[in-house]
Amino acid sequence: MKLLEDRIQKDGLILNDDILKVDSFLNHQVDPALMMEIGKEFARIFADTNADRILTVESSGIAPAVMAGYVMDLPVVFARKHKSLTLPDNVYTADVFSFTKQVKNKIIIDKRFLHPDENILIIDDFLANGQAVYGLLDITKAAGANIQGVGIVIEKTFQRGRKLLDENNIRVEALARISEFKDGKVVFTED
Amino acid sequence: MKLLEDRIQKDGLILNDDILKVDSFLNHQVDPALMMEIGKEFARIFADTNADRILTVESSGIAPAVMAGYVMDLPVVFARKHKSLTLPDNVYTADVFSFTKQVKNKIIIDKRFLHPDENILIIDDFLANGQAVYGLLDITKAAGANIQGVGIVIEKTFQRGRKLLDENNIRVEALARISEFKDGKVVFTED
Repeated sequence: MKLLEDRIQKDGLILNDDILKVDSFLNHQVDPALMMEIGKEFARIFADTNADRILTVESSGIAPAVMAGYVMDLPVVFARKHKSLTLPDNVYTADVFSFTKQVKNKIIIDKRFLHPDENILIIDDFLANGQAVYGLLDITKAAGANIQGVGIVIEKTFQRGRKLLDENNIRVEALARISEFKDGKVVFTED
Repeated sequence: MKLLEDRIQKDGLILNDDILKVDSFLNHQVDPALMMEIGKEFARIFADTNADRILTVESSGIAPAVMAGYVMDLPVVFARKHKSLTLPDNVYTADVFSFTKQVKNKIIIDKRFLHPDENILIIDDFLANGQAVYGLLDITKAAGANIQGVGIVIEKTFQRGRKLLDENNIRVEALARISEFKDGKVVFTED
């Protein structure tokens, strides 16, 4: 998605060989017009699916997922990161390890909002090590629902998330695929 | 906003005299089409302002704020709840006490995304005791920016948030104003 790649090139901050900060338009400050274009692009890419529901994780997944849900006319459920020791009743839960923060979070989704045999589309802002997406896949499987695909705004192809998903035959579509950071620039992979 | 009041009456769960759960369309599962209507309504109500930026707090404020930002063509910044003990550099910070969870959170906004003399609109999902909105007001003042108004999706008028804002001459506009819960029904205030 050229609009997104151009924006990453212009406003992304490369902190080191692994970390790209896009907090000026995606995950702290949000550009709503760009989010709408991202939503339209997910709708176009996944037009051949028949999803019943979109899942994402708070907080950075919410804006792109809600825009995709708007264009596709689907409800969006954002998994909550659960902090307290006691779990509420009637939730699906999965562990998600954050490499950036070096902490393990539990994410939870209320069982009222995910049902057996539903078709699920997962949307998230980043795919790096794939932990958040994996948590959502675990929850989807536990609910007996079907994964139709995973839509990612920005993928770092040099980390292991994509490999894990490919090995499990999950369809992954990323709007911008980064292969490396070189000379202070982002290098994108051509599909 | 009749569409919203009807939805609250239909899908809201009254847990006790104080707590209304709207997690089927606002803060766990999200109805994107409703969020767009909410965004349009905020744009209509605040058409007489000249805001430069919308502020909200993760996570439940993001969907309505981003839709309002889309309709009004404004950037949206969501304050992050900060968990670690050490603060990053170059952030504005405020303490926010959650009565529901009985914990104090710090919220932070990067100084790159809030500037002196800017005109700010605050949007959040709920106004009850007003703690989250107060945190955003504190940050806006600390930045030397101007508050143009506060837009709330659902206000519980019987809690003290509105009173505190009125005493400080802050313009508050709520799309649904709840005066009480009676016989298992939500009673709305007429403005």
